[in-house]
Amino acid sequence: MGKLIEPKVLKGFRDFLPDREAARLSLVRKLEEVFRSYGFAPIDTPVLEYAEVLLGKGGGETDKQVYRFTDHGGRDVAMRYDLTVPFARFMAAHLGELALPFKRWHAAKVWRGENTQRGRYREFVQVDFDTVGTDSASADLEILLLMRESFLSLGLGGVKVHYAHRGVFNAFLSRLGLEEKTGEVLRTIDKERKIGPEKTREMLTEVAGAHNAGRILEYARVEGSAALTQAKLGEAAGSDALGVKRLGEILTALEDLGVADTFVLDPSITRGLDYYTGIVFETFLDRLPGIGSVCSGGRYDDLASLYTSQRLPGVGASIGLDRLMAAMEELGEAGQATAGPSVLVLMLEEGLLAEYHRIAFAFRDAGIPAEVYPESRKLAVQFAYAEKRGIPLAVIAGGDERAKGVVNLKDLRSRESFDGLSLEDATARASALLR
Amino acid sequence: MGKLIEPKVLKGFRDFLPDREAARLSLVRKLEEVFRSYGFAPIDTPVLEYAEVLLGKGGGETDKQVYRFTDHGGRDVAMRYDLTVPFARFMAAHLGELALPFKRWHAAKVWRGENTQRGRYREFVQVDFDTVGTDSASADLEILLLMRESFLSLGLGGVKVHYAHRGVFNAFLSRLGLEEKTGEVLRTIDKERKIGPEKTREMLTEVAGAHNAGRILEYARVEGSAALTQAKLGEAAGSDALGVKRLGEILTALEDLGVADTFVLDPSITRGLDYYTGIVFETFLDRLPGIGSVCSGGRYDDLASLYTSQRLPGVGASIGLDRLMAAMEELGEAGQATAGPSVLVLMLEEGLLAEYHRIAFAFRDAGIPAEVYPESRKLAVQFAYAEKRGIPLAVIAGGDERAKGVVNLKDLRSRESFDGLSLEDATARASALLR
Repeated sequence: MGKLIEPKVLKGFRDFLPDREAARLSLVRKLEEVFRSYGFAPIDTPVLEYAEVLLGKGGGETDKQVYRFTDHGGRDVAMRYDLTVPFARFMAAHLGELALPFKRWHAAKVWRGENTQRGRYREFVQVDFDTVGTDSASADLEILLLMRESFLSLGLGGVKVHYAHRGVFNAFLSRLGLEEKTGEVLRTIDKERKIGPEKTREMLTEVAGAHNAGRILEYARVEGSAALTQAKLGEAAGSDALGVKRLGEILTALEDLGVADTFVLDPSITRGLDYYTGIVFETFLDRLPGIGSVCSGGRYDDLASLYTSQRLPGVGASIGLDRLMAAMEELGEAGQATAGPSVLVLMLEEGLLAEYHRIAFAFRDAGIPAEVYPESRKLAVQFAYAEKRGIPLAVIAGGDERAKGVVNLKDLRSRESFDGLSLEDATARASALLR
Repeated sequence: MGKLIEPKVLKGFRDFLPDREAARLSLVRKLEEVFRSYGFAPIDTPVLEYAEVLLGKGGGETDKQVYRFTDHGGRDVAMRYDLTVPFARFMAAHLGELALPFKRWHAAKVWRGENTQRGRYREFVQVDFDTVGTDSASADLEILLLMRESFLSLGLGGVKVHYAHRGVFNAFLSRLGLEEKTGEVLRTIDKERKIGPEKTREMLTEVAGAHNAGRILEYARVEGSAALTQAKLGEAAGSDALGVKRLGEILTALEDLGVADTFVLDPSITRGLDYYTGIVFETFLDRLPGIGSVCSGGRYDDLASLYTSQRLPGVGASIGLDRLMAAMEELGEAGQATAGPSVLVLMLEEGLLAEYHRIAFAFRDAGIPAEVYPESRKLAVQFAYAEKRGIPLAVIAGGDERAKGVVNLKDLRSRESFDGLSLEDATARASALLR
C-alpha cells in the first residue's frame, strides 16, 4: 500500500451530499414541470466546445476566467462558461431542423475560474429559458408569466419581477444628447442597488453633468403606480417610441390577467450588457430581497450573429440555482427534501432475507419508499442508522411474526408501536402516519 | 460584421435536440423514482478534480484518454472519466457525515478521449448506484432487485440479469493450480461473447493447457437450471466456499420472491477488472441482446483504499444511458417522449393578447401543457408550426368568440372541430382527446 491521497476537492468546487442534492434535484424538477406546461422544450449541448466557438475572436473579461486547454488531438477547447453562447451556436447549427419560434430550457453546470473570495463558485448550475425567432409582445409577456409561475411553484413565498425597457432608456438618453454615453450611464444605474444613491449621483454627474444626472435619476425612479411610471417614460422618451408602446401592451395584459401584483415597472433596471435591446428584468424574493436578483434577463435583437446571418431576435431569462439554494437554506426551506426512504425494514434474522425484501416490496407497491437494513446487527445499531438518515418508520418482524403472517410497525418519531398488523394494514397505517 | 464562425461541435460530442433530450430526461426521471423507492440517495461531485485524485499515481490505459490540463492557478486538473473514482473520493472525504451503509445513485456526464471510430462518444452519461459499508447478501440481493425494477420501469420489455461470483471462479482456478493465471483466464472468458467459443478455447489452451481449457469452458457453461449450475459450482470450487454459499442465499431469495425468471446464474460472467471480488453481473435486453450489457457491476472489497484506511466493501452497478437510448431508438420506443405542448392557442388578433394567455392558463390549470403562438400570422403558418412541433390540439378564438365567451377547439390529428365551447368544456374535451 502506498501513501494515501488526500480526498480534497478543488477550490470553488463542491460535493453535494444527499439532502442538498435531493433539494437541488427537486428544484429543477419543479421548474421543469412549469417549463413543460408552457411548451418550453429541453435541450443539451456539450460541456466542451471549440474555444473559438465559445469565445469568438474576443479577449473580454470573461475570457480570462474560462477553462481552456489543448485536447489530445491538438484542438483548442474550452468548458462552457454560460448557457447562452452554446445556445446561440446550437440555434445556428440546427436552424433547419427546428420550428421557429423555438422555446427551450436548459439546466446545466457552467464553469468560471472566478475569484472565490467573493463567495463565488467555479462550478455552478444555471437554468436558462428563451424564446427565439420572434419579436412579439406575446413572447415577452410569456417569459414574464413563466418567471412568475416558476417561483410560485418553488414555494419560496412571493417574488417581485422588476422590469423596464432598454429601448426606452436609450431613446431618453438620445433626447438628452447622451447617446455616446449610453453604456456608461446604464452601467452606473445598474449598480445603484449596490453603491447607493449618493455615489450613483456623483458618478452620473461626472459622466453627464449635474443637470442630466438629476433627470436620469428622476427617470429611473419607480413612481406610485405602474401607470404613473409608464406615463413618465412616455414623456421622457416620446409616447410614440416603440418601447413605450411595448411596455404599455405588457402592462395592460398583466393587469387583465390579474397578476400585476407580481410586477414592478422599474426604469432603474438596465442589465449592464450591451446585448439587451428590449424589455429587461430582475427578480427579487419578497422574503429575501437583499440577496439580489434570482432570475434576470431580457430581450435581445439577434442571438447568433457570430454563427449565422439569419437574424434571431429573442427573449430569455436565467435562474442562478446556487443563489436560489442559498436563499432556501437561509429561509429554512431546504430541509424539506429528505433523501432517505420512509420505511426501514429491520433485519432480525438473516435466514429471513427474502421475507424482509418481500415486506419492502409491499411498501413500495403502496408508493412508500422502503429499504431493508442489510445485516442482522443489534437493534440499537439499526435504529441509530434510521435516525441518522431521518427515516421515520421501522418494520420489525422475526420468526414469530412470520409464522403468524404479521409485522410490527414503529413510528420512530413518536415511539408509538403498532403490533401484529397484516402487511396490508401495515402499509395503510404507514400511509396514514406519513400524511 | 466579421466572418461567421462555423457552429460546429467537437468530434465525439453531441447536441441533444428537444425530442431526444426529453427522452433522456424521462429515462433518468423513471430511474430516479425507482432509486428513491429503494432508499438510494442522490449525490453530486465536481466535474473537475485534481488529476492526482482521479488518476492516483497510475499510468494505466484510461489515463491516456482523460481530459487533463493545468488550470489558472497552475493546478494539475482532470475531468472525471467515470463516476466510481469520484464516489470513492467522496466517501473518504465525508465518512464522518454519512450513515453507513451508504446507498447512493449518481447520473452525470463523464468524458473520455476515446477513438470515435468504434461509434464511441467522448462525452456520455453514466447512471451509477452503489451500496457501500456492508458485505451482506442482502445488499447484493437488493442491487439485483433494483436492477430488475429499474428496467421494468423503462418499459423496454424484459431483461435478463446474468450473474456469477468472482470468488467462486477464483477458488476453482486455484484448485486447478491456475492461481497465477487468474487474470488472464477471466479476461479471456469475459471476451467469449465477442470472440466466440472456438477462439476462446484456443486462447485458454495457450494459457492453461488443453485439459484445463476444457474444464474451464465446462465451468463457464450455463446448465439447464440455476440449481444445476449452482451444484456444478459447488463441486468445482468446494461447497463450503464462501461465494458458493452467497450464491445459494441469493438464488433461494430470488426464487422465494418470485422473480427468479429475470436472473440467470451464468458462470461465464467475470467482468474483466481486478476490482471485483464477489458477485458480478451484466444485463441484456430480451428484445435486443445483441447490443451487449446495458447495466453491469458487482461486489468489491474496498472502494476507497486510495484515500482512506477505512475498508469500504460494497456492491454497485452502472447503466450506460447512451447505449440504452440507442436501444430505445432501435426498438422504436424513443418517439414516445414529445417535447412539445399539447395545445397551441392560435393568435388571431394581437389586441386579444391577454385573452389568449388567459386561455393558455386555463389549460395549464387543467394539467394540459399549452402555449400561445406569439404573432398574429396567417393561420397556415401557425398550423405549420403546430405540425412541426407535433402539437395535437389548437384553440381558435377571435373577437366574435370572445364576445360570446367561447372558443373553438380543433384536433389537428383528425381535423375534427369542436366549436363554440365554454373554456371549461374546451379543457374537458381536450383532456378526453388527449387520453
